Amino acid sequence: MKLDTMKGLRRTHYCGEVPETEQEVVVCGFADRVRDMGNLIFINLRDRTGLVQLAFNDETDRAVFEKAQLVKGEYVLMAKGMVRPRESVNEKLKTGKIEVAVTDLRILSKAETTPFEVTNSDKVNDELKLKYRYLDLRNPKLQKNIITRHKIAQITREYFYDNGFLEIETPMMMKSTPEGARDYLVPSRVHAGKFYALPQSPQIYKQLLMISGYDRYIQLARCFRDEDLRADRQPEFTQIDLEMSFVDQEDIQACIEGYIEKLFKEILGVEVTLPLPRLTFADAMSRYGSDKPDTRFGMEIQDITDTVKDIDFVVFKSAIEAGGSVRAINVKGGAATYTRKEIDKLVEHAKGIGAKGLAYIRWADEPNCSFKKFLGEGDLEKINAAVGAEKGDLVLICADKNKVVLPTLGALRLICGKRLGVIPEGKFNFVWITEMPFFEYDDENDTWVAAHHPFTMPMEECLDYLDTDPANVRAKAWDLVLNGTELSSGSMRITDFELQQKMFEALGMTDEEIEAKFGFLVDAYRYAAPPHGGMGIGLDRLSMIICNADSLRDVIAFPKVQNASELMSACPSTVDEKQLEELHIKTTEIEE
Amino acid sequence: MKLDTMKGLRRTHYCGEVPETEQEVVVCGFADRVRDMGNLIFINLRDRTGLVQLAFNDETDRAVFEKAQLVKGEYVLMAKGMVRPRESVNEKLKTGKIEVAVTDLRILSKAETTPFEVTNSDKVNDELKLKYRYLDLRNPKLQKNIITRHKIAQITREYFYDNGFLEIETPMMMKSTPEGARDYLVPSRVHAGKFYALPQSPQIYKQLLMISGYDRYIQLARCFRDEDLRADRQPEFTQIDLEMSFVDQEDIQACIEGYIEKLFKEILGVEVTLPLPRLTFADAMSRYGSDKPDTRFGMEIQDITDTVKDIDFVVFKSAIEAGGSVRAINVKGGAATYTRKEIDKLVEHAKGIGAKGLAYIRWADEPNCSFKKFLGEGDLEKINAAVGAEKGDLVLICADKNKVVLPTLGALRLICGKRLGVIPEGKFNFVWITEMPFFEYDDENDTWVAAHHPFTMPMEECLDYLDTDPANVRAKAWDLVLNGTELSSGSMRITDFELQQKMFEALGMTDEEIEAKFGFLVDAYRYAAPPHGGMGIGLDRLSMIICNADSLRDVIAFPKVQNASELMSACPSTVDEKQLEELHIKTTEIEE
Repeated sequence: MKLDTMKGLRRTHYCGEVPETEQEVVVCGFADRVRDMGNLIFINLRDRTGLVQLAFNDETDRAVFEKAQLVKGEYVLMAKGMVRPRESVNEKLKTGKIEVAVTDLRILSKAETTPFEVTNSDKVNDELKLKYRYLDLRNPKLQKNIITRHKIAQITREYFYDNGFLEIETPMMMKSTPEGARDYLVPSRVHAGKFYALPQSPQIYKQLLMISGYDRYIQLARCFRDEDLRADRQPEFTQIDLEMSFVDQEDIQACIEGYIEKLFKEILGVEVTLPLPRLTFADAMSRYGSDKPDTRFGMEIQDITDTVKDIDFVVFKSAIEAGGSVRAINVKGGAATYTRKEIDKLVEHAKGIGAKGLAYIRWADEPNCSFKKFLGEGDLEKINAAVGAEKGDLVLICADKNKVVLPTLGALRLICGKRLGVIPEGKFNFVWITEMPFFEYDDENDTWVAAHHPFTMPMEECLDYLDTDPANVRAKAWDLVLNGTELSSGSMRITDFELQQKMFEALGMTDEEIEAKFGFLVDAYRYAAPPHGGMGIGLDRLSMIICNADSLRDVIAFPKVQNASELMSACPSTVDEKQLEELHIKTTEIEE
Repeated sequence: MKLDTMKGLRRTHYCGEVPETEQEVVVCGFADRVRDMGNLIFINLRDRTGLVQLAFNDETDRAVFEKAQLVKGEYVLMAKGMVRPRESVNEKLKTGKIEVAVTDLRILSKAETTPFEVTNSDKVNDELKLKYRYLDLRNPKLQKNIITRHKIAQITREYFYDNGFLEIETPMMMKSTPEGARDYLVPSRVHAGKFYALPQSPQIYKQLLMISGYDRYIQLARCFRDEDLRADRQPEFTQIDLEMSFVDQEDIQACIEGYIEKLFKEILGVEVTLPLPRLTFADAMSRYGSDKPDTRFGMEIQDITDTVKDIDFVVFKSAIEAGGSVRAINVKGGAATYTRKEIDKLVEHAKGIGAKGLAYIRWADEPNCSFKKFLGEGDLEKINAAVGAEKGDLVLICADKNKVVLPTLGALRLICGKRLGVIPEGKFNFVWITEMPFFEYDDENDTWVAAHHPFTMPMEECLDYLDTDPANVRAKAWDLVLNGTELSSGSMRITDFELQQKMFEALGMTDEEIEAKFGFLVDAYRYAAPPHGGMGIGLDRLSMIICNADSLRDVIAFPKVQNASELMSACPSTVDEKQLEELHIKTTEIEE
């Protein structure tokens, strides 16, 4: 079959936008569904806006009709014809009231049978779909996500540009200063034995831009982290990266709030109430057992240490004596869902997190308490009263150090909340988490390490005990959490050269290390810098939430899988020996 | 000196935007110039919008005055005060009629003496400025360029989004398929011995997006080429990358023309007349000796083969006999500028390009012809008449194969045009170069190679002699040239699976090579593709021209130098042995 050309025809309308009034149109796209009923042929033509029905019947020119008979699924077509009302209206379709009576049909490209049906691929396995990603990308659901992501980026730029931010591109091949995650490296051909690193973020450059007086910077920046990939992480990801001068934490938060308000309104029609609620890190931990609390539902953690302190139960007693606590969540109405066997699963889960065990009160007909033999007269009633438990409830109790108790109950809270269906869909609960700890204790190496990058400003009131009490130093750092997912992190940066030096020392860096890694940045601050701070917002994750998608893969055109490979192009791949020679490197091992 | 904080103050105006009416303002920025005259102090405060004068005098609060005495150049300040008329007006300054009588001064950050004066650094050597790039970036000229670049990107996105283009991010870590330039490689940690490549362009991905039905794609995409760097090239650069479906060459050109019109109007206030002129590659070569002709001036190449064919001058004769030609440019009024000695330099230059020599007629008082002894009666007059030479002109003549004659005269035309000052400033001459040759002859390997990437469509009328006459196959490929610089390249892509196979074969690729490099792309076209084509526009170069900058470095915040290193951070650099081990590579050599 000889293919046609577009000669003399140009599209007048996208398929999904063909109007209902009678007129001549030219549409083009992919044959989505072909129904050949002998003397009648219907072809659903699909483009990124939707579908329109092409109709061929007795009145159709014979040559055109015969050409229509040749069309198969996914063929690329261009068709001219008259819009007319359809016989059987399809209410689900935007163009469902009309069809195009075709007078000129062009077959521009033909398709072999696709390995799966592109618009009906829910049950096709992921690996096959990723191998043929270019076909899966024809799926209207995926197209909708990619288009939504485009709109999110567009609104993002609009908002920040309108607020005086400049988009400035920073280098992708930079110096390797590994912090936290591993760098991806790029060997240099010109400089034998030397390497560039792909940016983990434009952090250093955006701080330099503030030192250079650019005042407000934004960039939708590609970032790279060579981490052991968790289920939902990509080796390359996009960050809405921003930095502002002559501001403090609250100014930055207010700016981001305006952005969130605009974005959710314009994309989803959702009104977000400002200001967004704030929770200190300490409160978030004690109420939700998480620094990314999902505040769409209650079931908050309650401290019952005082209530149980006199009960002669060794688990409680030893926890309290060791400076820990006894805390509980009340899973309202959970007694029916959680049978004894189901509770055992929760116990196992709690152990997986690090708890030694889990006590509970299951109040079906009668309160059934896992530690009742240790209870005295009225103890059970006191506990139930303390946590507000009533008939039908399940109370889960954990006793240990706070660093075990809180995350354990935080995790169980989420599991039970999901299981009981008390987390409302379509609700967007933002919360700022503030006053983050400055240092984290590294058990393995028995030392305090920076919880954020080393340019993060401590809170002024904590400066005095930087050396004496690291556990209590809080940072001018904050996160924005949405429905239990961390969307964005921000901090104020140190601009005082001497304080920066002190921070590096507090982190155990030697002068040589400081010089080798950050020498130029430290130097830059010698020439004065405005007060500045900024944030990074994960565009992929933000898009995923807005699209209500299950995976980052659903909002990235060409994603990589968990082992950081791309199945479509089979990348990474081996390269010519000559390429490596030119780069002055050799491989030491090759994957089977 | 203890530094101040911003407590209780927030900026009300940018420095350059302080209004002339009396009112209280808060401004902040860098101390640009400090004049301390004992009982009077003036500080020019600078931010990215401009300058404003801070004034301190007898009426100033003593504590504020004393603090002002501490201020040195580049200190970061915040100042509150009343706007009032200035005594000596500075007409050059937007805020030159007013000053701010300061009532509250904050020294937010102090600066050591900078290695050069940031706003007066024209004579400072480039290396020092690049080492302290963060200081050079404070220079208002550089700031203006970076801000203009931001605006260019903004207008670009606006235009293409308004025209239905979606911005879709494509991977930065992709499969290595070296074509033309060398790839930058990224070793994989998870897949020992395998590598990603940084994209030379998103070519393959944007074609896949058309196959996937996205219809119109744009991306401001970072691209990477590991080439031997010429003076004005960067290892990483930004491309306005676009692709359109269901269009042909003219549709794409019309779309780009609309963009150019909008961009030049909004940024420079320049009206570009549409449609832009078109020149075939063949015409560009024969008239301007270049596929990137600077059409801002004439001095076109003229073919005088017929005029001189009977002259008994072996240089002409042998060129003509070998199938070459004799051509000339008339450097109007060039006789005065080009003395005998200066002409010798042109001859040397011509030889450098590959010409065996250069003949000339220098018509000062009398026509002085370098080959007059070979001329018969009236020959000189005939030549002069043919090229329109008059008293005062210089005629440069080259005889050889066309592939030598044309580039030689093309280069001399530019040199003489510049030297004589006949190239008008502030003029923007765009020209489309069309019908590019499909193949280039590779003298070294004695074979025809693709002049464009292997997916470029040949012109329909050339399909028949693809095998028989490669020299005459023209491509559906075109360039956009501005003032002699190639701004953008485009082409229509092959969508016919069988033709693509034929093209690969014509390029001498084996089935194995095709499969290994482009297997997935070739496969993709089996499932149908709309007719599509696109362009790539160099954003850096475009910005450079619009900013009237001398170098790409002047429109890139953190550029690299010719040997692909960044002087500020000293990158590339050596990395930890442990990093390389994890990547399963070893260096074979290390730069001193």
